[in-house]
Amino acid sequence: MPVTLPAGKLRKLKMLADPVGRFQMMAVDQRGSVAATLAKTMGVDAKAVTYDDLAETKAVITRTLSPYATAVLTDPEYGYPYSGHTIPGNVAVLLAYEESGYEKAGPEGNERRSRTIEGWSVAKAKRAGADAIKFLVYAHPDASDETRKHQQEIVRRVGEECAEHELPFLLEVVSYSLNHASGTPGFAREKPGLVIRNAVEYSRPEYRVDILKLEFPCELKYTAEYAHGLFDGQAREPVYTLDEVQGYCRRLDEACALPWVILSAGVGIREFQEDIHLSTEAGASGYLCGRAVWKGVLDLYPDVAAMEEHCRTEGVYNWMQCSAANLKALPWFEHRRFGGWDNIRIEGRSPEWHRR
Amino acid sequence: MPVTLPAGKLRKLKMLADPVGRFQMMAVDQRGSVAATLAKTMGVDAKAVTYDDLAETKAVITRTLSPYATAVLTDPEYGYPYSGHTIPGNVAVLLAYEESGYEKAGPEGNERRSRTIEGWSVAKAKRAGADAIKFLVYAHPDASDETRKHQQEIVRRVGEECAEHELPFLLEVVSYSLNHASGTPGFAREKPGLVIRNAVEYSRPEYRVDILKLEFPCELKYTAEYAHGLFDGQAREPVYTLDEVQGYCRRLDEACALPWVILSAGVGIREFQEDIHLSTEAGASGYLCGRAVWKGVLDLYPDVAAMEEHCRTEGVYNWMQCSAANLKALPWFEHRRFGGWDNIRIEGRSPEWHRR
Repeated sequence: MPVTLPAGKLRKLKMLADPVGRFQMMAVDQRGSVAATLAKTMGVDAKAVTYDDLAETKAVITRTLSPYATAVLTDPEYGYPYSGHTIPGNVAVLLAYEESGYEKAGPEGNERRSRTIEGWSVAKAKRAGADAIKFLVYAHPDASDETRKHQQEIVRRVGEECAEHELPFLLEVVSYSLNHASGTPGFAREKPGLVIRNAVEYSRPEYRVDILKLEFPCELKYTAEYAHGLFDGQAREPVYTLDEVQGYCRRLDEACALPWVILSAGVGIREFQEDIHLSTEAGASGYLCGRAVWKGVLDLYPDVAAMEEHCRTEGVYNWMQCSAANLKALPWFEHRRFGGWDNIRIEGRSPEWHRR
Repeated sequence: MPVTLPAGKLRKLKMLADPVGRFQMMAVDQRGSVAATLAKTMGVDAKAVTYDDLAETKAVITRTLSPYATAVLTDPEYGYPYSGHTIPGNVAVLLAYEESGYEKAGPEGNERRSRTIEGWSVAKAKRAGADAIKFLVYAHPDASDETRKHQQEIVRRVGEECAEHELPFLLEVVSYSLNHASGTPGFAREKPGLVIRNAVEYSRPEYRVDILKLEFPCELKYTAEYAHGLFDGQAREPVYTLDEVQGYCRRLDEACALPWVILSAGVGIREFQEDIHLSTEAGASGYLCGRAVWKGVLDLYPDVAAMEEHCRTEGVYNWMQCSAANLKALPWFEHRRFGGWDNIRIEGRSPEWHRR
């Protein structure tokens, strides 16, 4: 049975990937995390980081690294209005729709709620030239009903807006623990279950998501074969073996009813390369990667010449490592949802198509 | 003074051109002219040419030649719903908005009126993934007031629709004579004046056009240096010299307050190459070319294998001739309207941009 897609969604999905259907996308839509690092570099309080500091930093990254990506994700606050026009014409544009960060919620205040950016919409993004929409949702499958419903409802609403405008909807799902801080062995243990259960939920057709942007389901730093300090010089007590990690990756792929890409979450480039290898081996269709590639640039602000030099050397080198690790990614149209390129048609094609 | 453009228009203009800003665009949106030629090939009446004959012919051209273009212009009736998804993701899409052909008008019935495609709109084109809109207007500067106003009004309306959706508006202006048939010496003599005066009219800001798609202002077959049958083996009495033709090209460029591209109007590839050379020498920013490159394929219908072979050999060779002739095209952002890439900004950029 052929699978049909609305013309706009099909066209734009194709634009996000390389000619073979693999996603190699760069993220420069970070706001809170970039501001925090710039504050350290400048030796000031995070609140003293200005709009221009963020806009200028994003502009350097965007103009130097965009040409290497199949698509660039930026934000409509500090990124797109200042540096969107420097993204090459043959590189697609994704615009972020979530307010940076989250609101604390739940009976114990340890749950997370997301919001869309005030004053922004999918209609505006489309008018401004976006080829796809990205929304980041924080998710915990055992959060209170109220929190889960809030998060599901906002994703559903974004999905509807995207459907109305026939823009691909890329949903980033970020898990958190109710008990453990990120980076701890406790969180490392919980993570596979959280990531997989969240993927099941947000694969459901009612959300109208086109691509899932997911965390690597484990912490490689806590994996026996990597736990001796390979990535950051720090040895840790492992919580799983590489074999188990590969099993979690396969289970994550089975949980995804949609093509999925792996996110970098600020890990170092060496670790992210392994994440890409293991994810694509399990069925991921590529990556959407930001800080792993360019975070070094934040230490050089405000020396724009040094930042550009860093991006053009270290940044490009890092990017090439990601591309190399991505060679075996599953083309998005080969995902079981689609069954191959030749199985896909434009929805409603007929002599009357243009009247609808 | 920096020039500002709405984010969507700027992004999409960039997508239509190569990285240097030159347009090398392929047209496969012809409807009436393709049907007429297919009828000859098939030895049937034009009315016996079916929807599928047109859709299949366009599909062959689109899938074989699109990868060579910076953008592809197709139509929403026979073209896009059947073959739009075969245009590569890094090649932009223009969709036609005019009904093929024209309605006879004016006191003597020798004037021409244009219409938009019934049931189609810029909103629909945008939703379906178009990166720009093309409208063809027939124009005669001395037509009756009624006809001129009708044509100006429809262009103004399309311009407004495009502005609302921030899609680039490419206006094709086709001249005609009130007294002479196309291809005659009488028309050749009138043509420079018609093309130049039409360009002045439709450069006016009230139409909100972004790119003009114009006829070559002369008939090279009636130019002394080419009149001995170089292009079609037929010698003609010349009506101008090459020096005069170059003068008309310069006057056309002066008349254009916008970047402009040259159209092929079904002339042969050898003649069109000369058109490109002379136009770009005068300041054109590239070409939008259809039949000059692929018309041979129409003689081979319905032998799809032979058609594909023809496109992949003759068609690609023809395309390369056009690209080669286009090397000195003026990057669109170097047009005096813009004053260079570094002079262009996204309109309304500010921390409040996303709220507007």
